[in-house]
Amino acid sequence: MTEQATERKVAEAQTAALELAKLDDEARSDALHAIADAIVDEEARILEANETDVTEGEKLLEAGEYSQALVDRLKLSPSKLDDIAEMVRSVAEQDDPLGRTLSARRLDDGLELYKVGVPIGVIGTVFESRPDALVQIAALSLKSGNAVILKGGSEASHSNRVLYEIIREATSDMPDGWAQLIEAREDVNTMLDMDDSIDLLMPRGSSEFVSYIQDNTKIPVLGHTEGVCHVFVDRDADLDMAEDVAFDAKVQYPAVCNAVETLLVHESVAADFLPEMVERYEDAGVTLRGDAAARGVVDIDPATDEDWSTEYGDLELSIKVIGSLDAAIDHVNTYGSKHTESILTEDADRASTFMRSIDAASVFHNASTRFADGYRYGLGAEVGISTGKIHARGPVGLEGLTTYKYYLEGSGQQVATYSGENAKPYLHEEFEGDWIPGHLAEE
Amino acid sequence: MTEQATERKVAEAQTAALELAKLDDEARSDALHAIADAIVDEEARILEANETDVTEGEKLLEAGEYSQALVDRLKLSPSKLDDIAEMVRSVAEQDDPLGRTLSARRLDDGLELYKVGVPIGVIGTVFESRPDALVQIAALSLKSGNAVILKGGSEASHSNRVLYEIIREATSDMPDGWAQLIEAREDVNTMLDMDDSIDLLMPRGSSEFVSYIQDNTKIPVLGHTEGVCHVFVDRDADLDMAEDVAFDAKVQYPAVCNAVETLLVHESVAADFLPEMVERYEDAGVTLRGDAAARGVVDIDPATDEDWSTEYGDLELSIKVIGSLDAAIDHVNTYGSKHTESILTEDADRASTFMRSIDAASVFHNASTRFADGYRYGLGAEVGISTGKIHARGPVGLEGLTTYKYYLEGSGQQVATYSGENAKPYLHEEFEGDWIPGHLAEE
Repeated sequence: MTEQATERKVAEAQTAALELAKLDDEARSDALHAIADAIVDEEARILEANETDVTEGEKLLEAGEYSQALVDRLKLSPSKLDDIAEMVRSVAEQDDPLGRTLSARRLDDGLELYKVGVPIGVIGTVFESRPDALVQIAALSLKSGNAVILKGGSEASHSNRVLYEIIREATSDMPDGWAQLIEAREDVNTMLDMDDSIDLLMPRGSSEFVSYIQDNTKIPVLGHTEGVCHVFVDRDADLDMAEDVAFDAKVQYPAVCNAVETLLVHESVAADFLPEMVERYEDAGVTLRGDAAARGVVDIDPATDEDWSTEYGDLELSIKVIGSLDAAIDHVNTYGSKHTESILTEDADRASTFMRSIDAASVFHNASTRFADGYRYGLGAEVGISTGKIHARGPVGLEGLTTYKYYLEGSGQQVATYSGENAKPYLHEEFEGDWIPGHLAEE
Repeated sequence: MTEQATERKVAEAQTAALELAKLDDEARSDALHAIADAIVDEEARILEANETDVTEGEKLLEAGEYSQALVDRLKLSPSKLDDIAEMVRSVAEQDDPLGRTLSARRLDDGLELYKVGVPIGVIGTVFESRPDALVQIAALSLKSGNAVILKGGSEASHSNRVLYEIIREATSDMPDGWAQLIEAREDVNTMLDMDDSIDLLMPRGSSEFVSYIQDNTKIPVLGHTEGVCHVFVDRDADLDMAEDVAFDAKVQYPAVCNAVETLLVHESVAADFLPEMVERYEDAGVTLRGDAAARGVVDIDPATDEDWSTEYGDLELSIKVIGSLDAAIDHVNTYGSKHTESILTEDADRASTFMRSIDAASVFHNASTRFADGYRYGLGAEVGISTGKIHARGPVGLEGLTTYKYYLEGSGQQVATYSGENAKPYLHEEFEGDWIPGHLAEE
């Protein structure tokens, strides 16, 4: 697509965003239900397009260019479409993330300040080759009143195009242009330069890709490049529990960002804990590497310094024996990627120290790192997971797609009255009450 | 200073930030009271250093390189120091912005997710030549548990150095290195590259300078480059009120970002409103420029297209006659800088439409744009005003200097239990309750 065409799409989204901000929750939720219905009604059309993607994917799989996992993720089925429709309905049924009065303060009699939740505006998204990702991101954007630019993986291009068309058709009552599909990698570059029109970028994908986005735009970016997560088995851990949780954190789904990459074990339990743990990992096909102290207890390959900062994303794990709680905190704050960290201990004080001291979006006590996810957190769904600390942190759901606006209702006040000699003092009283536009003028 | 020295300061701040995050409100507030006391006790030392800055400033004033306003802003006095100490005490007395449980959700029995307010970490600040700015920014950072890098204007360098020393001496109980002073412009450039160590930048200063920062760093930036603010006198405005408010918005302090730059007047009241308004502005020395329709009513110079996007920052104002509410909204969304916009009208519906439709941090009804300020908003003080939409918007006080962290308290849960065939369902029940670290382990 030409640069001009992409710029036009973004401009359309920007116009639509201003209109979207004025719609009420019912209108946005009705549109989401229409999307869910259309996905079910248009099953044949979607599956036909998906078949094209899957066939092409299988050819590339035979040629050794794609993995089986990628082809599996591409594939839609009637039951998967039902699940997707159900997900859209569940987003529709979430509480309205907009319009809430976050605070109300009386600056003076007849001068009231309200802080009210509003949409961000135009969100640019780039996501992996799962056709359900397009629907999920579009649904979250619409529910939160944002216009959205959608760029999916090229492997799913036929599925994405049809899903996008169906979404646009089903939402013809919404401001025209609220969702925009872009398809080429160079269109992403066009988007990166549009910091006047795009308010937020949410890229998902490889570490290199997300870094590339962060390095090449002035638009704020929410996302994560790496998930180097740790589980720390403390000296006071329940070792049976620790074995189950540490196993789950690695083996249940090793390819994802919230899987554990380094297991830290307190030296006073290493000899008790590691032999059985290692056997269980090895039975599950996990490749293990350890520091000298770990290898004093179990027979595994040596870890190098590089291992401590590696996200394997696979059935691989590094193990380090740690002399103290402080050393564990220090290791995690040095090598972790601020994503998700877990301590396993029966000592509440030690749990508290670890949790308060670790600088990460999510810090767990006696639970698997794999729980760090928008759906599991009860956010409905997620547009991504942020390891930054600004705006939204951890799994980002509807709330992370909103910002706020200050509304001040006055009755002709001038700052001069509250300044200089004989300045009238401010009241600054917090009060309970929603913003009723113009209510002071009508009284 | 060498690049290495700046990097060392930032590294010290980063270490201190992890320690600061563990302190309770009492410790941070006590330290603030110690700062306030020290500012009063060390009056002579501060005034002596300030005298050096003022003397140098006056020389440059004579040479025509500085303005009188700049020299006035530099100057400290015993009563001004008392005010500064009082400001620090008022920051100390604000509610603790940290540790609040923002939400609590039971994912399952014995698996509780808490979202808790925490500091951001290391804040890099650059601010103008007002010695009170250094104290205000340091106080807000400490109260919110953040380490801070302080870079003030070179014109105030002697005052800043002494104030910084006094702050460090008074806070010897705080984690060493929590505040760092840098003094050279090239040290700012070193800071811009340290996106691994600095979590947020808050620059204040000229539009060009803030743009330069935004263009040359990967660190998130909160701030504003421009304040092109509007007052719209609607067809249903109380014209006496409108005259007072529009006068205040321009004349009360024209040099600041929340002063009005363009007055929009509905065509149906232009003939009634403009003659008196223009006379009052001209009596106050305001230079006026208008569009053709305005000049049909009053005798002022013609405005060019450039005027609509100009921040005069002075006793200058452009005037445009507008045919409809929609046209006013369109003009503001096109030329405004998303800072502060005001509608003057007695019609609540029209106020509501304007306020909801304008994309700006602050939108006012029947009040002067000059109210957009952290102190007036009751935020205690402000570190800056943000025209971005991510994280914090409008005047940024203590809350804008915080983020959150997810704490998950479990009892050995694995994700495998809640996945696949026979998956256990999540409860996802919201509940009232603060995070008590490790309480499930102790039960």
